[in-house]
Amino acid sequence: MNDSIETLKKRILAARGEIPSDLVLKGGKIVNVFSGEIQEGDVAFFDGIIVGVGAGYQGKEHVKLEGKWVTPGLIDGHIHIESSMLPPSRLAAELLTHGTTAIVSDPHEIANVLGLDGVRFMLEDSRSIPFDIFFMAPSCVPATHLETSGATLGASELSGLKDDPRILGLAEMMNFPGVIMGDNSVLEKINLFSGKIVDGHAPLLSGHDLQAYLTAGVRSDHESTRKTEGFEKVSSGMMLMIREGTAARDLEELLPLVNKKNSRRFCLVSDDLHAEDIANRGHLNVTLKKAVRLGLDTVTAIQLVTLNPAEYFGLKNRGAVAPGYYADVTVFNDLVNFEPLLVYKNGRKVVDSGNLIGFPVKQSHEVSLGVTRHKPLRIAPIDPNSLRVPHMGAKAKIIELVPGRIITTMRVEEVKSEGGYVVTDIDSDILKLCVVERHQASGRIGFGLVRGFGLKKGAIASSVAHDSHNVIAAGVSDGEILRAIERVKTMGGGLAVAAGHEILAEVPLEIAGLMSREPLDTLVRQLEKVKKACQHLGSNFEEPFMMLSFLALPVIPELKLTDRGLVDVNKFEIVPLFSKKE
Amino acid sequence: MNDSIETLKKRILAARGEIPSDLVLKGGKIVNVFSGEIQEGDVAFFDGIIVGVGAGYQGKEHVKLEGKWVTPGLIDGHIHIESSMLPPSRLAAELLTHGTTAIVSDPHEIANVLGLDGVRFMLEDSRSIPFDIFFMAPSCVPATHLETSGATLGASELSGLKDDPRILGLAEMMNFPGVIMGDNSVLEKINLFSGKIVDGHAPLLSGHDLQAYLTAGVRSDHESTRKTEGFEKVSSGMMLMIREGTAARDLEELLPLVNKKNSRRFCLVSDDLHAEDIANRGHLNVTLKKAVRLGLDTVTAIQLVTLNPAEYFGLKNRGAVAPGYYADVTVFNDLVNFEPLLVYKNGRKVVDSGNLIGFPVKQSHEVSLGVTRHKPLRIAPIDPNSLRVPHMGAKAKIIELVPGRIITTMRVEEVKSEGGYVVTDIDSDILKLCVVERHQASGRIGFGLVRGFGLKKGAIASSVAHDSHNVIAAGVSDGEILRAIERVKTMGGGLAVAAGHEILAEVPLEIAGLMSREPLDTLVRQLEKVKKACQHLGSNFEEPFMMLSFLALPVIPELKLTDRGLVDVNKFEIVPLFSKKE
Repeated sequence: MNDSIETLKKRILAARGEIPSDLVLKGGKIVNVFSGEIQEGDVAFFDGIIVGVGAGYQGKEHVKLEGKWVTPGLIDGHIHIESSMLPPSRLAAELLTHGTTAIVSDPHEIANVLGLDGVRFMLEDSRSIPFDIFFMAPSCVPATHLETSGATLGASELSGLKDDPRILGLAEMMNFPGVIMGDNSVLEKINLFSGKIVDGHAPLLSGHDLQAYLTAGVRSDHESTRKTEGFEKVSSGMMLMIREGTAARDLEELLPLVNKKNSRRFCLVSDDLHAEDIANRGHLNVTLKKAVRLGLDTVTAIQLVTLNPAEYFGLKNRGAVAPGYYADVTVFNDLVNFEPLLVYKNGRKVVDSGNLIGFPVKQSHEVSLGVTRHKPLRIAPIDPNSLRVPHMGAKAKIIELVPGRIITTMRVEEVKSEGGYVVTDIDSDILKLCVVERHQASGRIGFGLVRGFGLKKGAIASSVAHDSHNVIAAGVSDGEILRAIERVKTMGGGLAVAAGHEILAEVPLEIAGLMSREPLDTLVRQLEKVKKACQHLGSNFEEPFMMLSFLALPVIPELKLTDRGLVDVNKFEIVPLFSKKE
Repeated sequence: MNDSIETLKKRILAARGEIPSDLVLKGGKIVNVFSGEIQEGDVAFFDGIIVGVGAGYQGKEHVKLEGKWVTPGLIDGHIHIESSMLPPSRLAAELLTHGTTAIVSDPHEIANVLGLDGVRFMLEDSRSIPFDIFFMAPSCVPATHLETSGATLGASELSGLKDDPRILGLAEMMNFPGVIMGDNSVLEKINLFSGKIVDGHAPLLSGHDLQAYLTAGVRSDHESTRKTEGFEKVSSGMMLMIREGTAARDLEELLPLVNKKNSRRFCLVSDDLHAEDIANRGHLNVTLKKAVRLGLDTVTAIQLVTLNPAEYFGLKNRGAVAPGYYADVTVFNDLVNFEPLLVYKNGRKVVDSGNLIGFPVKQSHEVSLGVTRHKPLRIAPIDPNSLRVPHMGAKAKIIELVPGRIITTMRVEEVKSEGGYVVTDIDSDILKLCVVERHQASGRIGFGLVRGFGLKKGAIASSVAHDSHNVIAAGVSDGEILRAIERVKTMGGGLAVAAGHEILAEVPLEIAGLMSREPLDTLVRQLEKVKKACQHLGSNFEEPFMMLSFLALPVIPELKLTDRGLVDVNKFEIVPLFSKKE
């Protein structure tokens, strides 16, 4: 807060009660994250700052809270905005209604598509809104060498981000093998951000390798899924971010780790939160409700989403209801259900009775156009014949889905063919899978076979395909696959469901092929429609597009597909679809 | 730690156990400030960094700890180096032997004498030693307008310090009335350091005024002396630094405030620690011993002098025994007496069996010469007659000492005179007191009378006189007073005890008139000698020079003396020695 002296003087006058505050919240139960206690009293705002907590403040406006609960605005220390399919400003508006006033985000997805332009879009779209979005510089672009991404961000590219005050450090260093093997390009990035924060991502890393990862400078982890794992990481000095998102929910397992001695070393984060979840459930408020229900002390739980992330990230004057802190405050009806009644950001009311008010219409549409029109999906024209895959006469490697998980298993068996070309096998639930390169219009297409989707007809395609977000499609016939891909291309990115000559449903994701230009409710309706269309085609899954999107992620075992071909993840190399003839 | 990639790679190899570490502490009980637990295992150092905590590390050197206790090097978050009368590097060497590896210091005293030159001396003298000395930029130079200091440091002067990585923020803002009254020059300094830390100093500040002080940006306090006061300050968001120094000891009163919910918001600090105390007792280790004896959980107590100050001041990679942290480690024989056996700084052993080893001889002598020779005490020649104080025929204001405290009371009564001049009154224990301006050779001398020293003959003089450090002297006769003052001048600063024509004892303090060039043991012997000399003259006090040094501090009630005259502290103005004739 480098404010003018005159501003500071007025705040001091208001704090002393010599001039009225702008607003006084009267008679609330204030969660004091410093003392760990509940304090009854007033909270006075002036000029966007909390100037007084206690008794005897007079304001131009008074709000009687009558025993409602006052907490700091919630802070999510790790969330990927793109997973919500909303651009930053729209997501911000939604999260406010759940009591959140700040997030720290890793723009990993858009950076893999658009590089620094993507990061700049995220910064621009979130500027000057009544919500704080901080970013970590994406550390893994591209995620691997086994796929084609839209950009390569090395230390020299990232150095341009380092001095932005909203870039807090280096985002989750997923390439933990690169760290512990001493990969130059990886260590250069860590070194670049050694004066800031370096977040980690290291599932199951343990023992000396974990010590090495920390020695390199990594200071957090949000991938722990087991108590022993979490305990070792916290004891080794990591800020343990307990993840409770749409796909991964670790709270129940990890919460018993939190105790009075170590609670300052934990945060609650979302990581990935889908649009439907935000619309139907909420955000950190839902996690708080669950944590308290599971037995965590209420004030401790609130510290995990306020003071703790603020301290870890060095967010000055945030994370507490205290004089000199930003007037980012949430008023909850109770600390059981954590339903926000009022939310203030910089002293301005942005949520009333749980509803968003006065959130400025961010011209994210216009801004986002810069992102889409200048960089539409660059897919080379596809000849229908080019989708044909010659049958090589031996057993093929089939990607077998594991319901509810993003890992797959590899099956090697004989597959059906017609006229020398591989065909889908509905009886065995084997579909054709392809990944079309979308960044350079190279015409490169990777082919595979996937078992478990359950489609009896039609095809589905998506420009959301972790981590490089090439266009991935699965379907029964080449024609339907092509139709779905073409639709995704025409929309400038998105999800499409094709059957015969028709498109049954679609979700346009025009911002980098990842995010929608529609409001949340429209987006959710579109998503429900594609889901129903998939079920209509025979899909077995709750979230067929989520399953599809992870089939291109070559760091998750066991067999995946990129535009460069099938990836045997255990070997970490491209392998042919057909085994060598015996 | 912006290290080269090659350095980082080697550290990672050592962390993974692929190359031997430099040193492995084997079989210690490690105090884990993150988990709050005691962990048995090894600690591996490589290249000055902790690279592994756990089992299975091999080093070029092994140290068997056999159950001894391993803690992070202790950190003192608030200490005035000058109070020890040792220059930074010498103090550092002494504190190491008590298990401390880092301090945060306010060079308030030397800055009041030498301005930025003094701060630069402190920075220079503490550079490249195996001990971390961080500084806060002195906020109150001069301390008041009622005295003559050696420098004036406004925001523009301080701005040159702001970007030094060892300057962590703005030092204790003692002028809290200036803050809450919105004084421009005060707020400019706070604003200048708004991106860093602003320490506080606000005895008994409460209610709306305390809220105002915090609103201005102040974030800590070490002046609390009562539980209610401390509780309000912690609850308001202050880092509460519990002071346990030579003169002020607040631990016993404040420790009951610390509980499992709020312990992260407390530190233990020294503030002022005298040479004899360091030699005879210790430092934070003694405070730890007392805190644990008073019932504080041991690991919590250690957090208060390691992780807590490190987090508050943003000291990266310090305050924990964890991979990636600096290898600043203390090994204690037990966590009851807290006697350090071994101390490592940046992985190098600096204390063995409690004794300092391998501490580089810092040429503080040479460096300090720059400070003394260029700026000796600038005292105008004093004519013996100029010490005479005309008796104005009415009652005089007498400064009455309060044993063991730095406050005084004001007594107004008739005083003895001879030939129209005031004379001392041994029977009533009233001595003459004067403060000689020493920065500008202005010849200005303030006169007063003090009751309570008990001197029956002789005089004492000192160049340590808070906060402007003019030369203060008290004595029976003008001749003896002059002799003591002249001796202080000749020494280039220090303490002197005169009787008749002799100097009975002296302590040269050649560095700015505040610090000695001698080793601690020599200094302590000198100090003992002056103390005995005072007793010989009839002094009642344990610490007569400490009592003397605070008589010039015009911010402590009730009546004080500066070079400009008597200060009625409650009125905060200069008042005449004699009351108006009635």
